[in-house]
Amino acid sequence: MKVVAVDSYDVRFPTSLQLAGSDAMNPDPDYSVAYVVLRTDTGAEGHGFTFTIGRGNEVCRAALEALAPLIIGHPIDDLGEFGRRLTHDSQIRWLGPEKGVMQLAAAALVNAAWDLRAKAAGKPVWRLLAEMSPQEIVDLIDWRYLSDALTPGEAYDILTSARPGRAERIAHLEQVGYPAYTTSPGWLGYPDEKLVRLARQAVADGYSLIKLKVGGNLADDVRRLALAREVVGPDIRIAVDANQRWDVAEAVSWMTALAPYDPWWIEEPTSPDDVLGHAAIRSALATAAPHGRPIRVATGEHVANRIMFKQLLQADAVDVVQLDACRVAGVNENLAILLLAAKFGKPVCPHAGGVGLCELVQHLSIFDYVAVSGQLTDRTIEYVDHLHEHFVDPVVIERGAYQVPHAPGYSATMRPESLREYAFPDGPAWR
Amino acid sequence: MKVVAVDSYDVRFPTSLQLAGSDAMNPDPDYSVAYVVLRTDTGAEGHGFTFTIGRGNEVCRAALEALAPLIIGHPIDDLGEFGRRLTHDSQIRWLGPEKGVMQLAAAALVNAAWDLRAKAAGKPVWRLLAEMSPQEIVDLIDWRYLSDALTPGEAYDILTSARPGRAERIAHLEQVGYPAYTTSPGWLGYPDEKLVRLARQAVADGYSLIKLKVGGNLADDVRRLALAREVVGPDIRIAVDANQRWDVAEAVSWMTALAPYDPWWIEEPTSPDDVLGHAAIRSALATAAPHGRPIRVATGEHVANRIMFKQLLQADAVDVVQLDACRVAGVNENLAILLLAAKFGKPVCPHAGGVGLCELVQHLSIFDYVAVSGQLTDRTIEYVDHLHEHFVDPVVIERGAYQVPHAPGYSATMRPESLREYAFPDGPAWR
Repeated sequence: MKVVAVDSYDVRFPTSLQLAGSDAMNPDPDYSVAYVVLRTDTGAEGHGFTFTIGRGNEVCRAALEALAPLIIGHPIDDLGEFGRRLTHDSQIRWLGPEKGVMQLAAAALVNAAWDLRAKAAGKPVWRLLAEMSPQEIVDLIDWRYLSDALTPGEAYDILTSARPGRAERIAHLEQVGYPAYTTSPGWLGYPDEKLVRLARQAVADGYSLIKLKVGGNLADDVRRLALAREVVGPDIRIAVDANQRWDVAEAVSWMTALAPYDPWWIEEPTSPDDVLGHAAIRSALATAAPHGRPIRVATGEHVANRIMFKQLLQADAVDVVQLDACRVAGVNENLAILLLAAKFGKPVCPHAGGVGLCELVQHLSIFDYVAVSGQLTDRTIEYVDHLHEHFVDPVVIERGAYQVPHAPGYSATMRPESLREYAFPDGPAWR
Repeated sequence: MKVVAVDSYDVRFPTSLQLAGSDAMNPDPDYSVAYVVLRTDTGAEGHGFTFTIGRGNEVCRAALEALAPLIIGHPIDDLGEFGRRLTHDSQIRWLGPEKGVMQLAAAALVNAAWDLRAKAAGKPVWRLLAEMSPQEIVDLIDWRYLSDALTPGEAYDILTSARPGRAERIAHLEQVGYPAYTTSPGWLGYPDEKLVRLARQAVADGYSLIKLKVGGNLADDVRRLALAREVVGPDIRIAVDANQRWDVAEAVSWMTALAPYDPWWIEEPTSPDDVLGHAAIRSALATAAPHGRPIRVATGEHVANRIMFKQLLQADAVDVVQLDACRVAGVNENLAILLLAAKFGKPVCPHAGGVGLCELVQHLSIFDYVAVSGQLTDRTIEYVDHLHEHFVDPVVIERGAYQVPHAPGYSATMRPESLREYAFPDGPAWR
């Protein structure tokens, strides 16, 4: 099977009108996708996308067009080689390497290739991955720059060790689902009344972890977190998310002030590039909490590639690995990140606040439980309850858990009418 | 003065035909610029660019177009605010943050604004900067994420301490120039005979440091480095550059094999994102050299922003800071990097292998000597002797040194006939 065309779309949703998605760094996001359809000589199609929050989505589309000649006319049988072709082109590599717009575009294309492969196999991506041999998984990964932390042999051993019990773990997920947490109550633009109402609803809906955005104003954060804690009680975990708002010292002092309300993790306390900063914050917060539990540090949605994740783990800078399906170069690079996290014994809790990210990351977390870490302890996938209606195979959440997807593919296909309605800048929604 | 238009150009030179610029990661670069002209309501113009090596240059141009609405119609008086506007836009920030294509485009625009300002002042950029007060320099910098390593107050003190002796340092540079080194002998695609001839020529031309590309094949590298050492003798420094070719352990073993030929520094031994990897390599190479001198570690041309440079310094991962005029967000961010390097006592030796990079970085290094570090010891600017003929105010090298530029601006203006001839894909050179 060969790729014969790469069709790209700029699709944007005017989410800024409702302040859904608002946080300390992103006051008015318009959730968007640079969407791509890989067309092949057999007529089979693969759909994929990368996520942005509005302006500049057209640059990601330009990047998709720039990468297309690397794959058009080429076979798509070896997905490891397919991924490396997109990130190893010597001239294009100058534009990153492996970061920013070109990496986002590579994500869309690699994800589309997995959607294609899984549809051809008649399986969801998580199952396609789970049925591969350890060596097949190892061969999908770009091993460059990893060997000081994880070798192909170690990865093979991790995957081999996880083989027993796979059927039982799949059966468990089929029965109860994969744990979710919800960010819906906590957007910074929401009034207190809405925060309280949605937090109460989240507990009623079966969530055991909710997340609040912080970092705008300390007094507001103290009030909001106190309110939320009062509503949900002591046993529900409350994560907070600063969206990169602080320098190191400010992160420590701000979180020390929030510590009485027992935050479960602080997400993106500072620059996603700052490995050493995260390590310093984590170390300082290990003793900050009066409840006797260290405040965990989480990051990942803006972490550009496996090399940055490697260092976050080597430096013991994070407690929670928040991979993103579209930030790094797609499924292949996320396999490396799952294996790194398993090697270092850290839970993966994917980022999914966006368009279609929930749809994608459920496959990665399910694969992680079934075939990599084999664990659910402290693992949970973000869930945000908007924009799912634009997908052909949307996520299903019941009792605070993702229900296992069964449709073939990567759950990435958007409804054709949504692609038309929200086309930017000429679709009806933007006229 | 307000910006009324942003004109962008995709300009590429078919350098791959001569293998000039060839290295272990970049076998066939076509040196290119995404070029921009800021036009203002007074008729004054500023020229700037970012550098790429070919494919994907059009994505940088698309990024310039995406950033243009942030500055068109706005005043251009406060260059600190101008720079922060380009990197703080909340929606566009998602595409980095502060890395990759959007950062390259921000560099072009910030550089163009400095060209505009310096032309209006009738001064070269280095002098415009050197005549600013410490507080004015401090106010140009985006301080976010720096305070754990360098505060505005510390920067103010560094700049204030460097004020005495400025006139003498300018006079010294006017007399002898700023030291240069040359990469011209060492491109990986050159045969031994050409390497020997150009290395001999470099010494005759007054250079005291030459650079060889390595990392393709160890036996070849040993032979080439031995040849070069034989030609130049023991007193000329020979730097080597692996262009990110290795993992950590391979970098150490490869460089240990080259150690008998006394390499001065190893540049880009591994991923530019790998702060901890560089620290490990540097530590291992501190004792590898039989001549009793540690092999220095250098990087920077692909280091995305001030946060990564901060960590390279905090982790004691580099001996040489190789800032690039177009990789980070232009002059403003490079001021932060100069000050970080001064704080940590490390020399800055800018990357300049490209189109027009020599023209730009000379201003930054001259400013560093005059008004920041006040030192020339172990400082040197890369010089590559091609493509200067396309610039209106090209660098002048004499006796192995950059001669101080005097023309107003940032030496960034390309000749109009070059913009036309090498326009991609429709210029005469590409037809």
